[in-house]
Amino acid sequence: MNAIKLWERYRRYLCIAEGAGLTLDISRMHFDDDYFESMNEVIQRAYEAMDALEKGAIANPDEQRMVGHYWLRSPKLAPSKEIADEIASNISAVKTFAADVHAGRVAPPGAARFTHILLIGIGGSALGPMFVSDALSDPAGDKMGFHLIDNTDPDGAARVFRALAGHLAQTLCVVISKSGSTPEPRNGLALASAAFRAAGLDFARQAVAVTSAGSQLDRQAESQRWIKRFPMWDWVGGRTSEMSAVGLLPAALQGFDIDAMLAGAADCDEVTRNRNTLQNPAALLALMWYSTTKGRGGKAMILLPYKDRLLLLGRYLQQLVMESLGKRYDLAGRRVDQGITVYGNKGSTDQHAYVQQLRDGLNNFFVTFVRVLESGGNSLEVEPKITAGDYLHGFLLGTREALYANERESMTLTIRRVDARAVGVLIALFERAVGFYATLIGINAYNQPGVEAGKKAAAAVLSLQHQVVSALSSTPQSAEQIAAAIAAPDRVECIYALLEHLAANGRAAMSDGPGPDVAMFTKVPNT
Amino acid sequence: MNAIKLWERYRRYLCIAEGAGLTLDISRMHFDDDYFESMNEVIQRAYEAMDALEKGAIANPDEQRMVGHYWLRSPKLAPSKEIADEIASNISAVKTFAADVHAGRVAPPGAARFTHILLIGIGGSALGPMFVSDALSDPAGDKMGFHLIDNTDPDGAARVFRALAGHLAQTLCVVISKSGSTPEPRNGLALASAAFRAAGLDFARQAVAVTSAGSQLDRQAESQRWIKRFPMWDWVGGRTSEMSAVGLLPAALQGFDIDAMLAGAADCDEVTRNRNTLQNPAALLALMWYSTTKGRGGKAMILLPYKDRLLLLGRYLQQLVMESLGKRYDLAGRRVDQGITVYGNKGSTDQHAYVQQLRDGLNNFFVTFVRVLESGGNSLEVEPKITAGDYLHGFLLGTREALYANERESMTLTIRRVDARAVGVLIALFERAVGFYATLIGINAYNQPGVEAGKKAAAAVLSLQHQVVSALSSTPQSAEQIAAAIAAPDRVECIYALLEHLAANGRAAMSDGPGPDVAMFTKVPNT
Repeated sequence: MNAIKLWERYRRYLCIAEGAGLTLDISRMHFDDDYFESMNEVIQRAYEAMDALEKGAIANPDEQRMVGHYWLRSPKLAPSKEIADEIASNISAVKTFAADVHAGRVAPPGAARFTHILLIGIGGSALGPMFVSDALSDPAGDKMGFHLIDNTDPDGAARVFRALAGHLAQTLCVVISKSGSTPEPRNGLALASAAFRAAGLDFARQAVAVTSAGSQLDRQAESQRWIKRFPMWDWVGGRTSEMSAVGLLPAALQGFDIDAMLAGAADCDEVTRNRNTLQNPAALLALMWYSTTKGRGGKAMILLPYKDRLLLLGRYLQQLVMESLGKRYDLAGRRVDQGITVYGNKGSTDQHAYVQQLRDGLNNFFVTFVRVLESGGNSLEVEPKITAGDYLHGFLLGTREALYANERESMTLTIRRVDARAVGVLIALFERAVGFYATLIGINAYNQPGVEAGKKAAAAVLSLQHQVVSALSSTPQSAEQIAAAIAAPDRVECIYALLEHLAANGRAAMSDGPGPDVAMFTKVPNT
Repeated sequence: MNAIKLWERYRRYLCIAEGAGLTLDISRMHFDDDYFESMNEVIQRAYEAMDALEKGAIANPDEQRMVGHYWLRSPKLAPSKEIADEIASNISAVKTFAADVHAGRVAPPGAARFTHILLIGIGGSALGPMFVSDALSDPAGDKMGFHLIDNTDPDGAARVFRALAGHLAQTLCVVISKSGSTPEPRNGLALASAAFRAAGLDFARQAVAVTSAGSQLDRQAESQRWIKRFPMWDWVGGRTSEMSAVGLLPAALQGFDIDAMLAGAADCDEVTRNRNTLQNPAALLALMWYSTTKGRGGKAMILLPYKDRLLLLGRYLQQLVMESLGKRYDLAGRRVDQGITVYGNKGSTDQHAYVQQLRDGLNNFFVTFVRVLESGGNSLEVEPKITAGDYLHGFLLGTREALYANERESMTLTIRRVDARAVGVLIALFERAVGFYATLIGINAYNQPGVEAGKKAAAAVLSLQHQVVSALSSTPQSAEQIAAAIAAPDRVECIYALLEHLAANGRAAMSDGPGPDVAMFTKVPNT
């Protein structure tokens, strides 16, 4: 397509969503001019489904749940006054609590003020807070430092405690777990309690919980009289919980403007309710995903924000998109093995990593550029009349052109600056695009059966580990012998792996190894 | 395959590379028992090519360069005594310099000691140091803090300077740029110099350069009498430069054991020279990539290390693999559009993000698990006889089994612990696997023409920006009018984007916008 035709295409399809402060350019995606007409019926169905969802339909049929994350920023839309009141009172409670912490009215026993947050959570309870913290943090202005345990790695946790050494007495632990029984945050909580105890501190006096009422975590926090408990609701999924206490509490504690974040999300929700598809950036995203992946995930979505503050956007969306869309069955029960792969860090940095492959290699992706108009920082001229920010912007435009010239597809989202409002806009935009796309491909975007299955698989391994430990004795045995002894011959490989792990951690002794054909294992005295 | 057959397959193919302290399990990859026989001739050619490369062949024909990263950890292999001596004396210079910095013999003008490093680099000059720093850092034990500017984002750089506020007088700037003219580090250097100047500090007294002799950066460092200059050589590519001064200097300054890192890499090189393929873990990796991607990148490589310290391994390998393999032409000049997509963060964290899709959705990937035997940290029992580390290990085994049950492929690399030696092993392992794979598919793994093209594309955009700025006047003009005025009607879309950018940064005034059909632009007084 020649440059003039392309300019016409750009103008024709440019979606200027003034209410949300964003524009979306889809001109470099490969679709025909009759595409929107041909997709009109199905996208109208997606609008209908979204409308029903927003009104309180059971949009997550497998779990028989409503899907209410849009209410979090517009409580008046909630299907009952009770829910609306809960949302509003929670926002108010978060703000009051953060103000109390900042003013020292809520303070730790051994210090005047809490100065650091230690968030313990995983998945939906960590990625949103991480992304928002990295996007909005200002080391010179944040009201509290932000630290995170998002795994069950004792070495990783120990490193976090060492980073907090000297500050533990001023650290507020925010333990986030919707179910209250997910092993990673439960274990993180156990390790944190131990670290506090070792430092002579009373963990309960420095901890708040964000969890479902009545959960294991909720009961523990109540019985140990933690500082406060904030709710999670069964109508908010983990990966869409950033505007609930999960995201609002850490954000408010760091001093970010959560009202602006909520307003940005609400405004983006408003513009993405527009049933005139060419004016609806979320519908356009969903339709572009559908067009380029053929509705089957045939291409990967690469996020390339040209802005350091948006480094974690790709990782945040990796969860939102892949956990929502990566499904085996459609709503009619047919096997579909759906999904869209998502990755990406930031430009121009990634131009010096994998963009070589994007330009010249496999054509198995489409790029979503995020362009931020205000450069910020020092406007020093690095050469006559050219700033560092001009370079950043020039790299984006140059790469976009080069990809197009090589027949690689891209879209460009433009925002003015990265602030709390824009973060709310971006989250809401992709939440709704995922919801629309789920209707286009006919899947439930709001369950995650594989995550539950993963927990069960690990539980089975740990149960086997108990048996393996019991079967160890002072007589050297091979993995096969132990498998026979516990009547689990078909689990011998897992048993060998467990024995290696136990031996490396001083809980079994290995001789004649390494290697599954020769290694023999014995009990370690006093274990 | 039943469990007993699978156990036999596991034992048959398990590669125990004792010399490098790693094992590689390929039993969950889909290959037939005659695969290695069928691939023997071509992998033997890869061994020959690697041997020639190690002996100093021009293995990067496009740039007419030797490829010498293997010499960095075994200088005696270098093709000339001169090169061997340069390598050895550089390692020695790095160690002496780090010791001098730690002891305060090399100190800043206004403080007793350098306490922080600010690394300015991008791509191969940033990803290795970042990965190694994150893998080996101990906040309580590191000799210096580590900060990074890896982009040309003035806002991102400003944030780094605010994080260093109060410490700038004790900050050592390590500016890394092989060519010395890459815009991002050049701009980062300009911003850092300005920040030092603003703080009343003399940048040159706090800066060292790592660059090619005679480069623009080298000449600047020499003329301004920076503290020291370390070499880069044309026979070391950026993405394989971690064992040159690029990686060794920041590592040594942080107090990491660079001798162990070099020894680990050398030992891994040794075991991956084995021409008995089943005993060569790098050859097995390359052959597995070939088998599962059909030699055409047909599946993505997902890195799932179950260890917080290895979070950045996937991002590091994203560059190493994609920049090396993502090529348009093969060595015979045929268009091939090659590559392998790489992404991944860490387990079990990612189980709560995208592993839903891996288990249940698109089957378009293979996982490389990294299993670390020693749990580290607190061995507290989170439930009877079970530690947090048992959970981490259990999640890995459970996910591996579940993927296999769902016909998803995976490999498992096992190492004992994450230390400097293991980091050297991992880097060397993948460097060699990439080299072997490049021979299997017949491409040059050591050039990056698209990166150079990206720089040129941006330069063209900036040149256009100059013209646009000159064309602004007090008379409102549309983008089309400005395009006509500068005789660049085919660049009107880029011109509009530049005008938006200039307006957002106070360097043009926009009226009647937003939108390409209506926006008019004027010169801002006094610009």
